[in-house]
Amino acid sequence: MTTVTVIGLGPMGQALAGALLDAGHCVTVWNRTESKAAPLLSRGAHQATDPARAVTASDLTLINVVDHDAVDSVVAAAGDAVAGRVLVGLSSDTPQRAAQTAKLVNDAGGRYLDGAIMTPTDVIGTPDASVLFAGPRDLFDGHRALLQALGTATWLGADLGRAAAFDMALLDVFWTAVSGFLHALETARAQGITPGELLPHSLGIAAILPPIFTELAERIEADRHDDSAASVSSVAASLTHLIAHSENSGVDAGALRALQRYVGDVVAAGDGDREISRIAAAMRA
Amino acid sequence: MTTVTVIGLGPMGQALAGALLDAGHCVTVWNRTESKAAPLLSRGAHQATDPARAVTASDLTLINVVDHDAVDSVVAAAGDAVAGRVLVGLSSDTPQRAAQTAKLVNDAGGRYLDGAIMTPTDVIGTPDASVLFAGPRDLFDGHRALLQALGTATWLGADLGRAAAFDMALLDVFWTAVSGFLHALETARAQGITPGELLPHSLGIAAILPPIFTELAERIEADRHDDSAASVSSVAASLTHLIAHSENSGVDAGALRALQRYVGDVVAAGDGDREISRIAAAMRA
Ligand SMILES: NC(=O)c1ccc[n+]([C@@H]2O[C@H](COP(=O)([O-])OP(=O)(O)OC[C@H]3O[C@@H](n4cnc5c(N)ncnc54)[C@H](OP(=O)(O)O)[C@@H]3O)[C@@H](O)[C@H]2O)c1
Ligand SMILES: NC(=O)c1ccc[n+]([C@@H]2O[C@H](COP(=O)([O-])OP(=O)(O)OC[C@H]3O[C@@H](n4cnc5c(N)ncnc54)[C@H](OP(=O)(O)O)[C@@H]3O)[C@@H](O)[C@H]2O)c1
Repeated sequence: MTTVTVIGLGPMGQALAGALLDAGHCVTVWNRTESKAAPLLSRGAHQATDPARAVTASDLTLINVVDHDAVDSVVAAAGDAVAGRVLVGLSSDTPQRAAQTAKLVNDAGGRYLDGAIMTPTDVIGTPDASVLFAGPRDLFDGHRALLQALGTATWLGADLGRAAAFDMALLDVFWTAVSGFLHALETARAQGITPGELLPHSLGIAAILPPIFTELAERIEADRHDDSAASVSSVAASLTHLIAHSENSGVDAGALRALQRYVGDVVAAGDGDREISRIAAAMRA
Repeated sequence: MTTVTVIGLGPMGQALAGALLDAGHCVTVWNRTESKAAPLLSRGAHQATDPARAVTASDLTLINVVDHDAVDSVVAAAGDAVAGRVLVGLSSDTPQRAAQTAKLVNDAGGRYLDGAIMTPTDVIGTPDASVLFAGPRDLFDGHRALLQALGTATWLGADLGRAAAFDMALLDVFWTAVSGFLHALETARAQGITPGELLPHSLGIAAILPPIFTELAERIEADRHDDSAASVSSVAASLTHLIAHSENSGVDAGALRALQRYVGDVVAAGDGDREISRIAAAMRA
């Protein structure tokens, strides 16, 4: 039975603390809004009254508040208690902010491992959950068993910004896809198609993404955009119709308009007959 | 052995004609740029010299050019040959344009079924391919065996705009997801992460989309956004970091900025603690 502290009890922090309790660890929690600890206390967690006592209660403290400004305010509040402790930040933010938090922890005499959670709350505690880490290898290895209780834990390297850099890229994939789905549902509804009717076909689209992502990654790695099965000019035509359809349905088409600008630049550069992988380079500002 | 004509031999038209040849049908083709027929002729297809002869060669003609302006120009060029024939449009466009093509065909004495292909070229001819149809049920039923040679054929109803309305929504899901992935690859590259390194984790993101799409569709159908596991205000914080990270990496963040506007409106309306399904309504212009 290992002692571990979880700071931040939003939906994700609740899931993390719950998984650690399920795995049999001795869990101390702290949250700015104290009342959110209640469901975890009834499951056997201990509640600390302030961040310093929370950090002192365990060798390892996981911090999962909204972002690194909030992480840093917790670290600052913990003050001298950080000395000799290991802190693991799990909030989404930029590589620069992760490095800044690491410095803050190190300056206070603690050690810091940065993490990023690539998974919704409901799979936390199962191997389907993916949690990425970057920073000192010995910290990852030394606490690996405990970190694996959260999900599949992957160490990406000693470069402290690397988990956050992956996080930013993967959240980008996630939020644009989710946003596109919400946009499609809203546009379809304006056309009398219910979410339930669109869903099975949308799952069909989700199912074709893996081979397409794979081919696009290979093409971009090799900078090879010839021999197209789906050309940029064909997308240009589709986007014109998609945007008109969205706006005629009373739904803003901002994301599609952004894509249309990149596609237009590729066509204007004479590369309309290239594969859609060619569009990535046009996103460079 | 059924006779069938395929007009339009871009990457998708080639795949359609190829699948019909593989299924043993007698295939006539026509393409504006004649030379593109060559690979199909060597596989046994017949080449018509103009759209009228192409339509006359078979009872059923599939038209798969870039969009419905191009479809209509082919129908106009076929002229009187359309009388008594069945034409199936398979190009992506709006419901209004599908209806306009149907009128053009009907006015010329032909019958029209509208279709939409929800699949990349390489799975055409397998059950993994999804082709949606709308329009007269007897046309779909009467030609079902042949249409099934292209992939899984689904009839969505007699309302002629319905295949196009699904097409617009599903292409929206597809293009925003692909665009987000390309954007993520480009941003990651600026951070020293190669496409090959990001790919496996991106496939992990693709794998979590189906249950999330399912929950979002259910919530939107029921207009229920409480009890959040991922709140709008949490996304608002992530987006601020994602956009800064993208732009600091020299990559335009237009699509994320569109999402940020909707998210900002939801937070301003006092609904920041709601589930992310709440964002869809904010897209209504
Ligand atoms: N939910 C998901 O599905 C999911 C998935 C992957 C990653 N993540 C990431 O995990 C992190 C937490 O997400 P979440 O969904 O649990 O909720 P969240 O809304 O992002 O964060 C809420 C937590 O942050 C705390 N907090 C905010 N500002 C604070 C401050 N200045 N000082 C101290 N605490 C502060 C809140 O305390 P109060 O209770 O006092 O407000 C609460 O504990 C985020 O970085 C998110 O991007 C979430
Ligand atoms: N490729 C895919 O993965 C895919 C997937 C799903 C749906 N679709 C849809 O399928 C349709 C065809 O796509 P595609 O990829 O094969 O290529 P495309 O670039 O969209 O269309 C090329 C075809 O359109 C013809 N065309 C264009 N303007 C014409 C005009 N005014 N008159 C006659 N023909 C004209 C071209 O003839 P020329 O050869 O003479 O230029 C060529 O045959 C599109 O609506 C597309 O959205 C494609």
